[in-house]
Amino acid sequence: MTLRLDPVDLVARARRGEARAVARLISMVENASPQLREVAAALAPYTGRAQVVGLTGAPGVGKSTSTSALVAALRRQHKRVGVLAVDPSSPFSGGALLGDRVRMGEHATDDGVFIRSMATRGQLGGLAWSTPQALRVLDAAGCDVVLVETVGVGQSEVDVVSLADTTIVLLAPGMGDGVQAAKAGILEIADIFVVNKADRDGAAQTARDLRYMVSLGDRRNGDGDIWTPPIVRTVASRGEGVDEVVAAVDAHRAWLDRSGERDRRRLQRAESEIQAIALEQVRARLGDVRGAIGLPELAKRVAAGDIDPYRASDELLDGMAGA
Amino acid sequence: MTLRLDPVDLVARARRGEARAVARLISMVENASPQLREVAAALAPYTGRAQVVGLTGAPGVGKSTSTSALVAALRRQHKRVGVLAVDPSSPFSGGALLGDRVRMGEHATDDGVFIRSMATRGQLGGLAWSTPQALRVLDAAGCDVVLVETVGVGQSEVDVVSLADTTIVLLAPGMGDGVQAAKAGILEIADIFVVNKADRDGAAQTARDLRYMVSLGDRRNGDGDIWTPPIVRTVASRGEGVDEVVAAVDAHRAWLDRSGERDRRRLQRAESEIQAIALEQVRARLGDVRGAIGLPELAKRVAAGDIDPYRASDELLDGMAGA
Repeated sequence: MTLRLDPVDLVARARRGEARAVARLISMVENASPQLREVAAALAPYTGRAQVVGLTGAPGVGKSTSTSALVAALRRQHKRVGVLAVDPSSPFSGGALLGDRVRMGEHATDDGVFIRSMATRGQLGGLAWSTPQALRVLDAAGCDVVLVETVGVGQSEVDVVSLADTTIVLLAPGMGDGVQAAKAGILEIADIFVVNKADRDGAAQTARDLRYMVSLGDRRNGDGDIWTPPIVRTVASRGEGVDEVVAAVDAHRAWLDRSGERDRRRLQRAESEIQAIALEQVRARLGDVRGAIGLPELAKRVAAGDIDPYRASDELLDGMAGA
Repeated sequence: MTLRLDPVDLVARARRGEARAVARLISMVENASPQLREVAAALAPYTGRAQVVGLTGAPGVGKSTSTSALVAALRRQHKRVGVLAVDPSSPFSGGALLGDRVRMGEHATDDGVFIRSMATRGQLGGLAWSTPQALRVLDAAGCDVVLVETVGVGQSEVDVVSLADTTIVLLAPGMGDGVQAAKAGILEIADIFVVNKADRDGAAQTARDLRYMVSLGDRRNGDGDIWTPPIVRTVASRGEGVDEVVAAVDAHRAWLDRSGERDRRRLQRAESEIQAIALEQVRARLGDVRGAIGLPELAKRVAAGDIDPYRASDELLDGMAGA
């Protein structure tokens, strides 16, 4: 049985909860299908409903395990859940590894859960442009919550802050001191802190350090309404503390609505999204004219010190404008 | 005393080793000075000599300590050394933190060492475009080696692979299993592995795991000449093993020259650099016309589901073309 590729039909099927239609639509987005624009147009009327929750943290803090535990907790509340695992995969091999899917095994047969690993295609900005579109697919498919799991904080090209309504920053005891945490900019982006592996030595200290750092901050939106990031301790591998995380996400959602911050974040997200697409389009045009005006030739002259890269860029762009 | 800002003069001073001229040139690059193009043109003839060594690894493996120890080892060989610490700083606070500089304190008064923290200005691609230019400054200033320290592997917008002649991947025992390592794509990008904190439990196991993974790979360049990444154990905080790292860097340099790989990497680097500048120029133009064609207005319509982001992007680019 083949799946029809009419975008309007696919979106209708996705809205009825057909996992294959959802998967197909995300693939079309990810692979920049020629029908991408039709897909985007068909999705537009049905988006804007899902709560987008970003999960981020350094490798080793237990992001995949936490994501899986959160999915289980949300499913107990009968919520439809989408997961986008953004893997910064190898620039050489190109594909996302299977780790996440393997760990998500328990949810693989649950038709209230859509799980997808996004793989970068090695182009700067590739995920910046495709991830929000995949998110739109899950949103239109009726997900109440979409979890976006990214590796790293403030370093990924997928800026979880600009994607998410609620950003959860995961830490684990002994993963580095306060300077490391501050370095990664996590204090500013976290709406909720989760100290995972809370049964390990140092968990209380990590929570105390965070509490102190949070107390130094002062988050105030335009209306003077303040959100103080809660610090939740979990042992995700045993499901401990996960319901508290879900409660914190709910509380944050209520605050977003009350304060008007939710609308502000969504407008900002739409702006980033439009710009990322515009840049991708320009990048594609630069690629198209490569041959014509000889980027390799320009690179040779720059490498030899004959011209500087700004002059080379001018020549490249002139070539584009004339193409 | 004020420093004259004539780019040609500044470059001449930088070449004589004046630290203030070097610092000033990097600032002009980083802040996109109106004289940026003059600076780039003045630098071009003097670039291409420095060996660019990238250091990368997850937070907590001891990157800054290792960088500092490498600087000390290279100084013992009377090499002039530049350090670019690329901090993915907070998207909100904007500035790089001082951690690295503090730890680099011992080299602060050594006039054979230039140290600079690069701070992202919160724009995707900002560092992709300014870091290679800062590198050109240090290269033209006569640095024999430039160390580029980045956080994260394959996640940063500054792709250390496309910048460096030699990429060192730092690990520490107990920072996560092989799956985590493979996830981050470090196997493909490392020319040299360093297992730091080698006095800790698990160091031998980490080295063994790496050796096994390296043995599975097969790195062959066009000429059939093979480079097998060595695995060096260090305790950077005590300087142990650091001379071995320097020896590995030297060996890799010799291999790069012998195999022709060095020229290949440099051409690739120049290509990336030209493209990053070209995209930055386009981005600037998009920013300029924001007001005219109303990105906020387009974002509102996208957020409301009235139009899809691709149509919005078309309108944005049409606005640019007509501007």
